[in-house]
Amino acid sequence: MKIIVDAMGGDHAPEQVVLGAVDATVEDKDVFITLVGDEKAVKDILAECVYDESRIEVIDAKEVISNDESPTVAIKQKKDSSLVKAYEALMASKDAEAFVSAGSTGAVLVGAVLKMGRIKGVSRPALAPVLPTLKGNGVVLCDCGANADCKPTYLLHFAIMASAYASAMLGVENPRVGLLNNGVEEHKGNDLMKETYPLLKADEHINFVGNCEARDILSGDFDVVVCDGFSGNVALKTAEGTANTMLKLIKEGIYSGGLKYKLGALALKPVFKSVQKKLDYNANGGACFLGVKKVVVKSHGASKRNSIKASILQAKLLAENNICDKIGQAIPKKTTEDEE
Amino acid sequence: MKIIVDAMGGDHAPEQVVLGAVDATVEDKDVFITLVGDEKAVKDILAECVYDESRIEVIDAKEVISNDESPTVAIKQKKDSSLVKAYEALMASKDAEAFVSAGSTGAVLVGAVLKMGRIKGVSRPALAPVLPTLKGNGVVLCDCGANADCKPTYLLHFAIMASAYASAMLGVENPRVGLLNNGVEEHKGNDLMKETYPLLKADEHINFVGNCEARDILSGDFDVVVCDGFSGNVALKTAEGTANTMLKLIKEGIYSGGLKYKLGALALKPVFKSVQKKLDYNANGGACFLGVKKVVVKSHGASKRNSIKASILQAKLLAENNICDKIGQAIPKKTTEDEE
Repeated sequence: MKIIVDAMGGDHAPEQVVLGAVDATVEDKDVFITLVGDEKAVKDILAECVYDESRIEVIDAKEVISNDESPTVAIKQKKDSSLVKAYEALMASKDAEAFVSAGSTGAVLVGAVLKMGRIKGVSRPALAPVLPTLKGNGVVLCDCGANADCKPTYLLHFAIMASAYASAMLGVENPRVGLLNNGVEEHKGNDLMKETYPLLKADEHINFVGNCEARDILSGDFDVVVCDGFSGNVALKTAEGTANTMLKLIKEGIYSGGLKYKLGALALKPVFKSVQKKLDYNANGGACFLGVKKVVVKSHGASKRNSIKASILQAKLLAENNICDKIGQAIPKKTTEDEE
Repeated sequence: MKIIVDAMGGDHAPEQVVLGAVDATVEDKDVFITLVGDEKAVKDILAECVYDESRIEVIDAKEVISNDESPTVAIKQKKDSSLVKAYEALMASKDAEAFVSAGSTGAVLVGAVLKMGRIKGVSRPALAPVLPTLKGNGVVLCDCGANADCKPTYLLHFAIMASAYASAMLGVENPRVGLLNNGVEEHKGNDLMKETYPLLKADEHINFVGNCEARDILSGDFDVVVCDGFSGNVALKTAEGTANTMLKLIKEGIYSGGLKYKLGALALKPVFKSVQKKLDYNANGGACFLGVKKVVVKSHGASKRNSIKASILQAKLLAENNICDKIGQAIPKKTTEDEE
């Protein structure tokens, strides 16, 4: 399977991206990669690697879209950027089934919609990371930032798309869907959530189990948690901030003490490492942008080779599972009022 | 100063509430308490305590409003409930300056508005807890759940009220106000945040420093973070859920290992205790309900005597600082379009 990779996206591009792509081809013999970016820079890195040359090709792109640019303007104007050329390569070839980038989230999302388009019937594509839970299973949080303002239909579509995603990605049959809300009772919520609740309850494509309070997102009791992109962004970043704050406070506590604390910390190092690893939602790949015509995986901007490799293998798994076709089949065809 | 206390509110009422009230009178000789609740039960607990009898009085109330009831219906119908009678006692006496309850949040808020009313000019009262930060200062998160749907004017008022609160409660001059948003750039946000940003920027009563991403709420770079009640609830509960998840994962890691881990954990016990204490935002009192005519402190439902005592002393501090008068002076008088 051919996967297009934005060689210039992310804080550690192109080096870590190219290395991650090479690693993916080494790990999986069915992976074929098209790296899009500064040809010379990419080839210089490849020259240092041992890999199957028949499975990695390079498409030259002279420009890069940065985080500081307006995504819409950049996608329209930077025709020689790695991102625009990558989407063109994705659409030009029937063999190319998926795309991975660690670049500007906004530009990746806008590019996907403008260059590729939505699956028929999908009101709005949505960004969906998989977060770790206390029980060890993952939970898909959808939407996490693509749509700051939402209508109830959007959230219904997020639930349908994220359910297909949870099945493909986590191997869960009949994923349990929760609606992010400020209480568990049916009548709770802001206007959006109050109107969304009956839609989710009535839809036979999903296994809606009720409201999910934010404190229970990581409980493991849900496979999918649905929300508007603003609330999802708040939840995701609060979780990140709180975990970092706790680790820093523990570290400060250890360093403020004497030898006893340092020996204790040494003894518990594997525990801390394991907790940190469990909470690192980037370790197993990136966030999937659900609802566009081919698989798009947005890897974290800080991704190193391991995360890039994981994102590529994740993209392959999703394409193999025909996630886009499944979403197309599950989205109710009549709901077109919100399409633009 | 006389403080009215709902003796029947919370998971550990009346015992822990009464004990906390007694503790508050022991710690501060200027505290006078009116306990409202089942007279016999309250007096039985008091009979076991050593305290200044001239400073604690009891008002009998036969009913209790539970978490499962509709707040509005309960406040209107349960005229002999501890909450309704407490608000009546609060309004009946000029000496009574503040109210503390660990009961149903919804009922405490609805009761405050219906039985006491808003400060003139305030569009919507808001619930504001103080969260701990990495730098050791506190941050006021406002609104945290009283208003699930908000207009930009509400958020402006939250900013003004929470600034007065941060000054009184945390002793911060010119508190730095951030707007909870999905990015730091000025143009970021959902419609609500985009419309609120210029209002906060233009208002001379507050020290608006820009957008605050959810990962930075606990950074210590803000004294006040303003948001709608839905997002605030998501942030607060996600922080709570993430902290609990981390502690549980660390514990599990320790118990899964051998003696080395257990010795390490023993050595680090004071560190874990200290981190847990730092993150416990209930230790220093409760959430203040800002914008009503007298001081209302909502203590956590799980409050024990220490939290109740802290909430009572917090309520006294706020009343001494004339927080309600200060809010009344700071709220722009012309903005009455959103008043009902």
